[in-house]
Amino acid sequence: MLFARPLAELISELEKLPGVGPKSAQRLAYHLLRVPEHEAVSLANAIRNAKQRLRFCVRCQNISEAETCEICLDGRRDRSMVCIVAEPRDIAAIERIHEYKGGYHVLHGLLSPMDGLGPEQLRVKELLGRLADGDIEEIILATNPTIEGDATALYLAKLLKPIGLKVTRLAHGMPVGGELDYADSATLLSALEYRREM
Amino acid sequence: MLFARPLAELISELEKLPGVGPKSAQRLAYHLLRVPEHEAVSLANAIRNAKQRLRFCVRCQNISEAETCEICLDGRRDRSMVCIVAEPRDIAAIERIHEYKGGYHVLHGLLSPMDGLGPEQLRVKELLGRLADGDIEEIILATNPTIEGDATALYLAKLLKPIGLKVTRLAHGMPVGGELDYADSATLLSALEYRREM
Repeated sequence: MLFARPLAELISELEKLPGVGPKSAQRLAYHLLRVPEHEAVSLANAIRNAKQRLRFCVRCQNISEAETCEICLDGRRDRSMVCIVAEPRDIAAIERIHEYKGGYHVLHGLLSPMDGLGPEQLRVKELLGRLADGDIEEIILATNPTIEGDATALYLAKLLKPIGLKVTRLAHGMPVGGELDYADSATLLSALEYRREM
Repeated sequence: MLFARPLAELISELEKLPGVGPKSAQRLAYHLLRVPEHEAVSLANAIRNAKQRLRFCVRCQNISEAETCEICLDGRRDRSMVCIVAEPRDIAAIERIHEYKGGYHVLHGLLSPMDGLGPEQLRVKELLGRLADGDIEEIILATNPTIEGDATALYLAKLLKPIGLKVTRLAHGMPVGGELDYADSATLLSALEYRREM
């Protein structure tokens, strides 16, 4: 009996979070016991609210409070471009650069035959549905430069090009501020392939 | 508008946790959105329950569900020894070695004049109250070997010795499995001072 039961239960729930081991779970639990009641309750409420009030945008499959997300509803955005990402968090990453003004489509995963993830498990059907209205001219494939990300990009390119769409892929290359000396060969090779005239 | 509002609120609440930066908060939030409803609700409930059902043991000030904690109620434990620790989590650390069979007293902090923490802010009054019934013979000071921990131990030793109690302190020395070569001088010095005849 190391911990009082409600404390043990809290630790065990916290341990289920990604990247939270037994030690961090204990630290977080003791922290929550120490903070004022309202602060701990705010966190509990935020978890409940997020689960109850959030759903997927019917258009782009992004996380949204309303039926259609704010990006899809935003009239100032360019409806002719759709950037395809694996996860909703990837949208936040691209939005942070404040440069891209088109729309998005979230696949909610990447092709991974080993994990039983085929095109049917991804939101590909929904993407094809969006192409029907004819506004979309360019598809930017922004899946991660990993085996699964590359395979998914290749699959989508083969699927979408015959429809007559312009299909592009985010460049692979040296990260800004990186050093050639430390770059892996795959990255260097990509940087060479994606090189551009100055 | 990077995130839907309930998601932004969840991220902001998670960011308040110790050791959770903006990036981890986002990762945790997306994780909670992905898991089944009941799993996220379990965490929210565990936080609420822990806050509502836990309090401090009237005797040793440990975290407890009942008025008196299970360690204090356990008749098999030696009531003549009291181990003084700074935080409830330190009790868990000592209990894990399955060797110590006495009682505990949690100070809920350490002396730290810079942070305005004097003896009045610690549970020292409650400790003196426990000494009144005369069962206690030995006080083991188990505060961390830090400046605040040492200062607190020194303060308590000066306070408790005149009462006629045996006051001991956890040994400082080489951690088991450690290498002399890598030990800092303060640790080595302590190990020398605490040396024992074989």
